[in-house]
Amino acid sequence: MQVLISGAAGFIGSHLVDRLLRDGHTVVGVDNFITGDWGNLAHLSGVKEFALIEMDATANDFVSRMTELGPFDLVLHLASLASPKDYLAYPLETLESGSTATRNMLEIALRYEARFLVTSTSECYGDPLEHPQTETYWGNVNPIGPRSCYDESKRYAEAITMAYHRKHGLRTNIARIFNTYGPRMKLNDGRVVPAFLSQALEGQPLTMYGDGTQTRSFCYVDDLVDGLCRLMMSEEREPVNLGNPQEITLLVFAERIQRMLGTECPLEFHPLPTDDPTRRQPDIAKAKRVLGWAPKVGLEEGLAPTVEYFQGKLAARR
Amino acid sequence: MQVLISGAAGFIGSHLVDRLLRDGHTVVGVDNFITGDWGNLAHLSGVKEFALIEMDATANDFVSRMTELGPFDLVLHLASLASPKDYLAYPLETLESGSTATRNMLEIALRYEARFLVTSTSECYGDPLEHPQTETYWGNVNPIGPRSCYDESKRYAEAITMAYHRKHGLRTNIARIFNTYGPRMKLNDGRVVPAFLSQALEGQPLTMYGDGTQTRSFCYVDDLVDGLCRLMMSEEREPVNLGNPQEITLLVFAERIQRMLGTECPLEFHPLPTDDPTRRQPDIAKAKRVLGWAPKVGLEEGLAPTVEYFQGKLAARR
Repeated sequence: MQVLISGAAGFIGSHLVDRLLRDGHTVVGVDNFITGDWGNLAHLSGVKEFALIEMDATANDFVSRMTELGPFDLVLHLASLASPKDYLAYPLETLESGSTATRNMLEIALRYEARFLVTSTSECYGDPLEHPQTETYWGNVNPIGPRSCYDESKRYAEAITMAYHRKHGLRTNIARIFNTYGPRMKLNDGRVVPAFLSQALEGQPLTMYGDGTQTRSFCYVDDLVDGLCRLMMSEEREPVNLGNPQEITLLVFAERIQRMLGTECPLEFHPLPTDDPTRRQPDIAKAKRVLGWAPKVGLEEGLAPTVEYFQGKLAARR
Repeated sequence: MQVLISGAAGFIGSHLVDRLLRDGHTVVGVDNFITGDWGNLAHLSGVKEFALIEMDATANDFVSRMTELGPFDLVLHLASLASPKDYLAYPLETLESGSTATRNMLEIALRYEARFLVTSTSECYGDPLEHPQTETYWGNVNPIGPRSCYDESKRYAEAITMAYHRKHGLRTNIARIFNTYGPRMKLNDGRVVPAFLSQALEGQPLTMYGDGTQTRSFCYVDDLVDGLCRLMMSEEREPVNLGNPQEITLLVFAERIQRMLGTECPLEFHPLPTDDPTRRQPDIAKAKRVLGWAPKVGLEEGLAPTVEYFQGKLAARR
């Protein structure tokens, strides 16, 4: 199949490109490189089934330019500023990636009657009042807080995706992605996995926002990509949670990393940022039921290649 | 002052234009006339302080076209498909009016360092779990339901407005408008005030969705417009509720109309539409505190000119 994917040079995007090529598809990747990284796709240089285009999916001529490169069977909208550090630095671009870029990708899908998938987020649940979060939960999001540029942008992306499905009968999918980790995360994107790992590898104190009792559920990127591949071929039209339901506190996560690396860095506590969720855990019963999917990679197993990746990155930086 | 107002030919927009002209301002109104009505502004024909332009605020050349007509001191974004009947018929246009049109109006405000106001909605609270709703309540909105094209569009409009304020220091205001009624509502827009009034005036049964125990709080349009005028000149940057806190059930409202018109039409009950809110009542303590505003017009007092308007419209139709 012919696939168009935005955010192709990002963390999840680049892993998905690898998987799509491995599965025999032809892929056109597009990225504006605000947070994407050429290095994530450097290994595909010369692969004739893959083309990478530097363009912003919000550009006025994006739809016409991309349409020329079709036809496409699959249109995958992954472009997003996904880390708080990035979206707080680029709030307007973050908003546009959910609105204008999503509409543009939907328009391309519509022209080719292609399947469409958008990567939404567990942030749609905000600071959830239900636990774990099922797809039917409507969320608890502050529409005007500093994080709303991301959360509301993704909720808008879901709403416009459903509107295209309802109005035009487009075959759309919405993945609500929970915390994901693995190689190709940016060292300095501010999220807890790269932050703890790079600090631990450099023997610095681990920065803990809040008291560390807040929980996260970390899904290894290969598992996530497998879930996306199943979802994009499914007949499910409403959102599906993709994440690892194994919930741990950040305190326990910090201990695991220290044990794994055989280090004992002190923890440095800082205040919790505004509207930071205190608990986050996916209910993946729906993904199991409609996609036959569940994560397979345990935390230690997934951390090993991730640590290796960060060690390489840190060594290259010296 | 020089004012740019989108949605100028709409129900609330046209009343605001009248008020701005009465207050001595010069007004450029713009409307795409999807739901706006030339008739709402026909009385301003020949008024040299007013210009009306037919253009869609989402058009690619909207910002450059409007900027040529400046400078503006006030940029007011009222364009919206505000009735469920309209936004369910035009879901994609509804989404765009919250995203692209809001961004375009913000860009114009930014170029002239003008004050900016966007009309948001009580629909941001969704089917509220708190009652009455204060501005700090984050809402209970279904991001993928049929109504999400409106609700999420408005939440997005709030988020992008706050992002422009935070990023560029723009003086922005967000009005969360609750149910408003008065002359110039469309007879057939599907909302309860025009629906009940036109049915009662024509001796037809009143269509009641649900059992009629759901509540609404109706604010007369002159009160609302006064609140908007106070808000657009205030230093408040976060949302302010504007509405009438007097809450009545639809059953009581139907009785009032019948008593007022001296008719006894039967009620015809229909199922409640998906995600229709069961209770909606503004907490206006903040508007009282920061704007010195509260509604002054009682329901009977406001219904009188409204009935008169609908009688004229119905007579003209015969």
